[in-house]
Amino acid sequence: MKKSDRLIYLPLGGAGEIGMNAYVYGYGAPGKERLILVDIGVTFPDMDTTPGVNLIFPDIAWLETNKHRLDAIFITHAHEDHVGGIGYLWDRLGAPVYARSFTANHARRKMEDAGQSAAVINTVSAYPETISAGPFTVSFLPVSHSIPESSGLVIDSPAGRVLHTGDFKLDETPVLGEPFDEALWREVSKNGVKALVCDSTNVFSRHAGRSEASVKPEITKLVAGAKGMVVATTFASNIARLKTLADAGVAAGRSVCLLGRAMQRMVAAGEETGILGKFPQTIAPEDARDVPHDQLMLIVTGSQGERCAASAQLSRGKYRGLRMNEGDLFLFSSKTIPGNERGVIRIMNAYSEMGVDIVDDCDGLYHVSGHANRPDLLRMHDIVNAEMVIPMHGEHRHLREHAHLAADKGRASMVLVNGSMADITGVEPHVVEHVETGRTYLDGSVQYGALDGIIRDRIRLALNGHVLATVIIDEDDEPLGDPWIEVMGLPETGGSNAPLVDVVEADLGQLLMRMNDKTLSDDDKVEEAIKREVRRSVQAEIGKKPEVTVITSRLA
Amino acid sequence: MKKSDRLIYLPLGGAGEIGMNAYVYGYGAPGKERLILVDIGVTFPDMDTTPGVNLIFPDIAWLETNKHRLDAIFITHAHEDHVGGIGYLWDRLGAPVYARSFTANHARRKMEDAGQSAAVINTVSAYPETISAGPFTVSFLPVSHSIPESSGLVIDSPAGRVLHTGDFKLDETPVLGEPFDEALWREVSKNGVKALVCDSTNVFSRHAGRSEASVKPEITKLVAGAKGMVVATTFASNIARLKTLADAGVAAGRSVCLLGRAMQRMVAAGEETGILGKFPQTIAPEDARDVPHDQLMLIVTGSQGERCAASAQLSRGKYRGLRMNEGDLFLFSSKTIPGNERGVIRIMNAYSEMGVDIVDDCDGLYHVSGHANRPDLLRMHDIVNAEMVIPMHGEHRHLREHAHLAADKGRASMVLVNGSMADITGVEPHVVEHVETGRTYLDGSVQYGALDGIIRDRIRLALNGHVLATVIIDEDDEPLGDPWIEVMGLPETGGSNAPLVDVVEADLGQLLMRMNDKTLSDDDKVEEAIKREVRRSVQAEIGKKPEVTVITSRLA
Repeated sequence: MKKSDRLIYLPLGGAGEIGMNAYVYGYGAPGKERLILVDIGVTFPDMDTTPGVNLIFPDIAWLETNKHRLDAIFITHAHEDHVGGIGYLWDRLGAPVYARSFTANHARRKMEDAGQSAAVINTVSAYPETISAGPFTVSFLPVSHSIPESSGLVIDSPAGRVLHTGDFKLDETPVLGEPFDEALWREVSKNGVKALVCDSTNVFSRHAGRSEASVKPEITKLVAGAKGMVVATTFASNIARLKTLADAGVAAGRSVCLLGRAMQRMVAAGEETGILGKFPQTIAPEDARDVPHDQLMLIVTGSQGERCAASAQLSRGKYRGLRMNEGDLFLFSSKTIPGNERGVIRIMNAYSEMGVDIVDDCDGLYHVSGHANRPDLLRMHDIVNAEMVIPMHGEHRHLREHAHLAADKGRASMVLVNGSMADITGVEPHVVEHVETGRTYLDGSVQYGALDGIIRDRIRLALNGHVLATVIIDEDDEPLGDPWIEVMGLPETGGSNAPLVDVVEADLGQLLMRMNDKTLSDDDKVEEAIKREVRRSVQAEIGKKPEVTVITSRLA
Repeated sequence: MKKSDRLIYLPLGGAGEIGMNAYVYGYGAPGKERLILVDIGVTFPDMDTTPGVNLIFPDIAWLETNKHRLDAIFITHAHEDHVGGIGYLWDRLGAPVYARSFTANHARRKMEDAGQSAAVINTVSAYPETISAGPFTVSFLPVSHSIPESSGLVIDSPAGRVLHTGDFKLDETPVLGEPFDEALWREVSKNGVKALVCDSTNVFSRHAGRSEASVKPEITKLVAGAKGMVVATTFASNIARLKTLADAGVAAGRSVCLLGRAMQRMVAAGEETGILGKFPQTIAPEDARDVPHDQLMLIVTGSQGERCAASAQLSRGKYRGLRMNEGDLFLFSSKTIPGNERGVIRIMNAYSEMGVDIVDDCDGLYHVSGHANRPDLLRMHDIVNAEMVIPMHGEHRHLREHAHLAADKGRASMVLVNGSMADITGVEPHVVEHVETGRTYLDGSVQYGALDGIIRDRIRLALNGHVLATVIIDEDDEPLGDPWIEVMGLPETGGSNAPLVDVVEADLGQLLMRMNDKTLSDDDKVEEAIKREVRRSVQAEIGKKPEVTVITSRLA
C-alpha cells in the first residue's frame, strides 16, 4: 500500500437506528478511495413521524455523487433492512451486486418488482470464493441468523482485513441452514484482523443467546396439546422457525397450511434455491377449508400486527375461507418490535373477543432472537481478536454500549454514526469527515428527503385539520359575493352551536367589509388577513387553530 | 328488597381497555334503578388513531339521559384514568361527587381548571364512614396502589354488598400511605359479598407482586454510586416512589430538586392534604443551577417519553437552566406503557448522544407495578370470597383471562365489556341490556363522538395529502380563467419533473374544455368530474391518490 492511501468506513444507514443498513468501505488516496457498499436496506414508516410514506431509505446522495468510485454492492442477507432498497436505489448507483443464492433470489425479485434488470445481481458462493472489487477482495462468510444464508463479509484491502459480521447470532444448532462455525471464523481471523465491524442489536441482553433448536420441544408440546385449530405466526423469512412450526403440526397429525403472500414467497424462494431441506408437505388454503379444525395448523404472516397481514385478517373474521373459532389457539412465535405493540395488542384483543386462546412469548418459550447477546458479542470479539471493534446495526444507545463493552476489555472502539467517515488504517478509528446523510422517503412513486417539509405538512393537517377560504375580487378590487369556507377534519359546530363554516364566513365577510382599497389590491395582504381571521375565528369557536389555505381569485 | 327490584352493573368505560374508567351500579325496578357512578376517567390519544385529539372520554350519553336517576359519583383515586373526566363531564351529570381528601383535592382542581364549581366535590373519610346515595350505602375502603389514598368501594344495596376494588395491589409496606390491610378486607367481607368487581390489569403477570419498599435498597445503592448528576423519572403521582428517590438523593448527600409541573403539583397536593409525611427538603430549579452535578439529584416528569415533559426537555438540551453532561446518570424508575416505546427510546438515544448513562427497569430492580398480579388476584378472590367475580379495568384479553382464573376456582364469573348491563342480583351475572357506548373526543374545546368521521378525515389527510382545486364559472356557464390548484403534504414534482400543480392545472384545463354545457351547468357534476380528474392526474404523476376539495365559484 502507498503511504498516503487509507482505508475508510462510512455508515450511511444503520448506525444510529435499527433499520436501513448501508455501509461504505473505501480504500485509496484521500478523497479518491475506491468504494464498496455493504447492504442497501429500508426502514418502515409509522403514523407518528411518517404518515402515508411507503418506505424509508438511507439518503445515498453522497454515494450517488461518487458512483464513479463505487466498484460493487454486497448484500449480506435477505432481510428488508439489508436488501429492501435495491430495487428503488440501484439505478442511482449502478454497480454490480453480489449475494449468495437465497439472498440473490430475493434481490432479483426486488429488481423485477421495480422494473429494473435482475441481471445485475450476481450469485456467489461462500468463503473461500472471493470477489474482486477495485482494491478489495471480498468473501461471504456463513454465519447463523434468523434467515437462511446470512453471511458476514471478509473484506481484504491493502491496509488489512476487515470482518463485517452482518446480522448474526452464535447458533450451533440452527434447525436449517449453516451452524455458526467457530473454527471457520478463527481461521479467517488467525493472521490478524484490522477491524471487526459488529452487529449491536442485542447488546443489552445479558444472557447468552439460545439456539433456534431450543424452541422446538416447547412448540411441539404446545401444538400436541391443542384442541382446536392452531394458528402460529412468525417472520416469514425465519424459515427455520417455519419448519419447526410445520414439523410440530405434522407431529400432531395436522395438515399444515401457509397463509400470507410473504410466507408463500419465502418458502418458494427456499425451494428454488434448494435451502429448504425436508420441509413438510403443506396444503393450499382452498383445501384447508375442508379440514376439521382439530386437524389443521395454519402458519401465517403478521407477527407484528400489520393490518393487512393474515393474522390481522383472521382476527377480523373470515380470510381465504378460513375462520378461527372459540377454543382455537393463536401462537405468537415472535417478539414484538418496539413501536408495534399497539397493532399486536389490537389483534390479541380481537382474538380474545372470538374466544381464541392466545399464547405469546412472554416467557421466552416459543421464540429466540436472531442476534448475538452481550456474552455472544464478547465471544465474537475474542474469536476475531481484531485491532478495533466498530459497533454497527444499532440505535445510538446500542452502539455506545457496545463500544463500552469492547473498550472495557481493552479493545480500541468508537461510536461511529451515519455520516461519520472514519479512517481505520491505523490502530484505532478516527473521524476524518462528516458526510451529509439522512432519510429518503418513498411516497407513492416519488422519492424525497425527510427534511423537505412535505410530511411535516401532513402531520399538521392531521393534528389541526384544514380550512379552505376562497374569495373573489372583481375588476374594481371589490369583493365579489361572499367568502366561501370548506373545512376538513374539524367539527361541524363549536361554542356558538351555529355551523362552524357559517360563523367563519360571517367573520370573513365582516373582515372584507372593513378592508381598505389598498389592502384589497394586494393579494398577499388579503390572504394574510384572511388567514389570520380564519384562525382567530375558528380558535374562538372550537378552541384550536387549523391549517388554512386561502384562494383569492381576481377577475382581470 | 322488592322481588322485582334488581342490582345492576354497567361499565361505560374501562372494561375492554385500560383507561377511561366509568362504572355504573343501579338498584331498583328494571329501567327505573337509582344509579351511582364509580370513576370518570380519561384515556390518551395517539397519532395512529386520534391525531390532534386532546383527551378521550367514555361516551356518557346513556347516563346523561338518565341523570335524573343518578344519585352520586364516587372517585376511587386520583389517577387520570379515574378522575380525569370530571371537569369536562360533570356538568352533563350534575350529581354530587365523593372522594377522599387527596383525590378530592385533585378533583377540585380539575373542576376549577374547567371553569366548574369545585364545591360539588365532597371530601369523605375512609371506612367505616358511609355515604348514602339513593338505595346505596357506600364506603371508601383503603387499598394500596401507586398513588396515595387509593380506595376500593364497599357498595351496599338491598340486594347485598358489592366490593369494587378500584386499582389495587397487595402491598403491606407501601413506603407512604396505607398498607394493604387484609384483616380489614376480611372484616367487610365476612357477612357475605355478592360480587367482587376486580382490577384485571396484571392478570398475565405470573409471580406475586413486589412491595413498593423493595425498590428502595437498589435505588439507594444506585444513587450512592453515581458520579455525576442523577436524574430520575417516575409517574408524578407515585409519591411513595418520589419519596424513595428523594431519600436516596439525600442519603447520598445530594440536593434534591423536583422538575416538571405535574411533579410539583402532586407534591403540593400531598402537602395540602397532609399525606406527604416526612418528605425530604427540596430545592427550586433556580437554586439547583448552582449546585455541582455530583451533589445534585433531579426528579423529573416524563417517564413515558412525553415530548413536553422535563425528561424530554433535558434530552434536547438546557431546561430551566439545567443541562445533563457526559457521565451523568438518568434513571427510568418506571415501566414503559405499551404504545409509548418510541417516545421513550427517542429520549434514551438523545441521552446516549450526550454521553449520559441510562438505567432502565429491564431487570425489575428500580420499579414495581401498582397492580395486583395473578397470584395476588387469587388471594383477593379468597379474602373476599364473593358469590361472583366480575373482572374490570382491562382490555378484553385481561378480562377474559381473569374470568377464566376465577372460574377455574369454581367462582361464578363473566366477561362484561363496556355497554353490557348485567343483572347481578342472583348467584351469577347475566346480561339484560346492551347500552350504546363508545368514545368521546375532546378536540380543542369541542366534544364529539369517535365515529363522527372527523378524525377519519384527518388521518386521510395525513396519509394522502390534500389537493384543492378551484374553478370559476361565469354567467354563461363557461369556465372563467384557468383552474387553480393548491397542494399540501404532497411533493412538488413527480414523474414528469414539471411542477405537480402545473401538470394538474393543465389536465384540469383540458377537462373543462371537453365539458359540455349540461355538465357545466351542474355544480355537483363539475365537482365530481374535477375530483376524479385530479385524483387520476396526481396518481399518474406521483403514484398516490390525494384527498381533494373542489370549489366551484359561479358568477351569478
